[in-house]
Amino acid sequence: MIMRVDLNCDAGESFGAYVLGDDELLLPEVTSVNIACGFHAGDHNVMADTVKLARDTNTAVGAHPGFQDLAGFGRRLIDTSEKDIYNSVVYQLGALEAFCKTQGIQLQHVKPHGALYNYAAVNAGTARAVAAAVQAAVPGSFLYALSGSALVTAGKKAGLNVVQEVFADRTYQPDGTLTSRKEANAVIVEKEQAAAQVMEMIQERTVTCVDGSKKDIQADSICIHGDGKQAAAFAKRLRELLEAEGVQVKAPGAPV
Amino acid sequence: MIMRVDLNCDAGESFGAYVLGDDELLLPEVTSVNIACGFHAGDHNVMADTVKLARDTNTAVGAHPGFQDLAGFGRRLIDTSEKDIYNSVVYQLGALEAFCKTQGIQLQHVKPHGALYNYAAVNAGTARAVAAAVQAAVPGSFLYALSGSALVTAGKKAGLNVVQEVFADRTYQPDGTLTSRKEANAVIVEKEQAAAQVMEMIQERTVTCVDGSKKDIQADSICIHGDGKQAAAFAKRLRELLEAEGVQVKAPGAPV
Amino acid sequence: MIMRVDLNCDAGESFGAYVLGDDELLLPEVTSVNIACGFHAGDHNVMADTVKLARDTNTAVGAHPGFQDLAGFGRRLIDTSEKDIYNSVVYQLGALEAFCKTQGIQLQHVKPHGALYNYAAVNAGTARAVAAAVQAAVPGSFLYALSGSALVTAGKKAGLNVVQEVFADRTYQPDGTLTSRKEANAVIVEKEQAAAQVMEMIQERTVTCVDGSKKDIQADSICIHGDGKQAAAFAKRLRELLEAEGVQVKAPGAPV
Amino acid sequence: MIMRVDLNCDAGESFGAYVLGDDELLLPEVTSVNIACGFHAGDHNVMADTVKLARDTNTAVGAHPGFQDLAGFGRRLIDTSEKDIYNSVVYQLGALEAFCKTQGIQLQHVKPHGALYNYAAVNAGTARAVAAAVQAAVPGSFLYALSGSALVTAGKKAGLNVVQEVFADRTYQPDGTLTSRKEANAVIVEKEQAAAQVMEMIQERTVTCVDGSKKDIQADSICIHGDGKQAAAFAKRLRELLEAEGVQVKAPGAPV
Repeated sequence: MIMRVDLNCDAGESFGAYVLGDDELLLPEVTSVNIACGFHAGDHNVMADTVKLARDTNTAVGAHPGFQDLAGFGRRLIDTSEKDIYNSVVYQLGALEAFCKTQGIQLQHVKPHGALYNYAAVNAGTARAVAAAVQAAVPGSFLYALSGSALVTAGKKAGLNVVQEVFADRTYQPDGTLTSRKEANAVIVEKEQAAAQVMEMIQERTVTCVDGSKKDIQADSICIHGDGKQAAAFAKRLRELLEAEGVQVKAPGAPV
Repeated sequence: MIMRVDLNCDAGESFGAYVLGDDELLLPEVTSVNIACGFHAGDHNVMADTVKLARDTNTAVGAHPGFQDLAGFGRRLIDTSEKDIYNSVVYQLGALEAFCKTQGIQLQHVKPHGALYNYAAVNAGTARAVAAAVQAAVPGSFLYALSGSALVTAGKKAGLNVVQEVFADRTYQPDGTLTSRKEANAVIVEKEQAAAQVMEMIQERTVTCVDGSKKDIQADSICIHGDGKQAAAFAKRLRELLEAEGVQVKAPGAPV
Repeated sequence: MIMRVDLNCDAGESFGAYVLGDDELLLPEVTSVNIACGFHAGDHNVMADTVKLARDTNTAVGAHPGFQDLAGFGRRLIDTSEKDIYNSVVYQLGALEAFCKTQGIQLQHVKPHGALYNYAAVNAGTARAVAAAVQAAVPGSFLYALSGSALVTAGKKAGLNVVQEVFADRTYQPDGTLTSRKEANAVIVEKEQAAAQVMEMIQERTVTCVDGSKKDIQADSICIHGDGKQAAAFAKRLRELLEAEGVQVKAPGAPV
Repeated sequence: MIMRVDLNCDAGESFGAYVLGDDELLLPEVTSVNIACGFHAGDHNVMADTVKLARDTNTAVGAHPGFQDLAGFGRRLIDTSEKDIYNSVVYQLGALEAFCKTQGIQLQHVKPHGALYNYAAVNAGTARAVAAAVQAAVPGSFLYALSGSALVTAGKKAGLNVVQEVFADRTYQPDGTLTSRKEANAVIVEKEQAAAQVMEMIQERTVTCVDGSKKDIQADSICIHGDGKQAAAFAKRLRELLEAEGVQVKAPGAPV
């Protein structure tokens, strides 16, 4: 059996005169990228440039829809209707797909951003709205979701290819959820330890939780956080480690 | 030779709690509709509802991209780059097309809105940017443009099917331009006179200008202005008159 | 002892080309008005016009700050920080006060809008943030708050003059809260019954709840809901009834 | 006769998650600062923090109103009415003044931003609208304007204290206008040469134009461009040079 995993990061989060992240540095080191769609970040010019950069670096392109909240960078929950979420996701996917079309590439996947990602992970109605929008607007695409979350369930039910996402640098609770950032031990600072956590997830299909217990986990994609230099270096190192262990590092849509 | 013409109006200009126009009244009376894309008017929920209404009333759907200026309703010229115009049109077309896809219909055409329509009619660079965006995002679609304008030229050069638009209720200058709204005789108030102008445009392929001279004009589509009841009544009356004269009233993409 | 009460309504909710409400009809019938500040509704032009209209109709002017959410008309809760709420209220109050200054009038009061009003009524932290912002930006002004709510408490603690607001056309639960709009009996449709509820509130300082029990209530200001004609007629009728009973109908800041 | 001049820079241009400039580094080196008001940049949280920083560094605070165009950073001309410009400036000044009030300081001045600054420098109607708004909203404040421009004239006519602004690092044409940035010699890269130009402007009240001719110029304030380290270093060096020559480096509102 072939082990494979995807290295994934966010991109295209600049807006007008505001620059965020260092996409040119990071994209060559990952296999797939989530591009902001102008609601929580990004704009039409940034989207055009980022889709082109992804094409040029052979990185699989995904849409990164979020709440319409530039002021809050999509990190704040907005108490809105499922219909509003459905339509806002359809809108954002269409907008990004148009840039894929002008660049002659396929939109591979969708990954919700920030508060929408977090809320779809725990709220069944929101998860259904997101999954239905993806299936309607980009049928057959991949849906990225927090491993084991409500969005995984909703995505599968909607007939989508669900990619379960794990975190290299976050610790896990015995119930499989991430340790809250309010806790001191939420983040794994040591890069080698983060890499070891990833290796266990892929090879053993388990994660060692904060209490030392083992929890089953599916790791289809690894989320690479953070901006610029350090994130790129970590992605590069992780890829080398994975490949040395015989793991294929590829986007989900790439041929074996 | 069969004479045919399209009756066209704007729709989907509501936003959030703000209602504008009476689309349910107007759409059944026209053959094609331009739906705002969330930049100068409209939002993702309004777009979803309006595309559905167009499908239900068998009205051909077009995108109505404008400047990103909700405060000015897209009527103010923004001094921006051609690249920005190109990307903003691609974005808006993609967003609207996604709602067409979810409703199982085709996006038939594109008509720029307000200041973008007016500027693309006279500025070659803007016209080229709009035409290129339409060809890239929705290849083979129809582009609506002011009859005889720079956008007609740019659209043809880009390989698009150009639909030349005329106005029933505006007077024309000897050079084929519309009389400025600052002039007293800019608008034709008398509905029968407006209908007569349209009949001449279609049957004679000319328009009688304010000085009495005749000017050649191509009338593929007639713009129905105004909100609600009166506009719907005028569209209905015009269609009856046209059909009584043997003119087919159909969207450009409809079969003969 | 002199009985007095304020008749209050929202205004200035139009935006750009979008018209909402009929302020010219309603303002002459009330004694105070809450003007949107460009975050959930209104814009700088609408604010200028509405402040002028209030001055011309001798209506006391208040600011109506809301969440920065034009798409949701400020009716959706946004999960944000108290610091963000504090600063957003300071910003909105300053903006409106500048138009009062250019018209030579005083900003009399502040009433939060929509989701901000509702959340400040039940959440102590939000109530504190709103009250502190009002006291910092417009010290000594009146703060309108749902009668008996957390915002009343916070406003008094901050040293503000709190105006307790009641509803003529909403039924009350035995605990003093409004019956949810999801219930069939939430709204009082019969205008005479609404007027009778107001009279009891002012004369007896009680409200008869849905179960027939009496609850103490303070009615400093009556909220006049709804747009245009009907609301204006109701306000006019209510004022006549109140004055016939010897109640002074005046803004809180007006001399006895 | 005492020579004095103001060193001025923009600040508070961050927005939400987007950081722009390094205000903490730059503010201690200048004497006055223009703070964005949320239309072209900045938001209510950034404004609160920047006003506080200015107070803490004893920097005179000005409002920096611009076109409502976050996407274009206020650098694009929007073809709008004078009434709209007037009201938008009143709104922005009020918003910023509220933060000055909560920090217990005075709003010293107003300087329009970007396209509004440039257009008010050459268009008399725009200049009048800006000057009238400043006089109405913050009577008696200082108005910063390009030295010799239409805004200087309009500001004086409106009864404002006009501060004429010059550029250290831009070359001048014989007619007193700045050399267009499209020209190779528009910018003075050599810092010592920029300092020498400033010294001539203050001591001789002339500027040596690109053709070697001398042009009269009034230099009340020197605009310090650019972000972060280099700008701060240049401001510091300029101040030392000026003070060594006996020039007082002070904000216009500071006592002699």
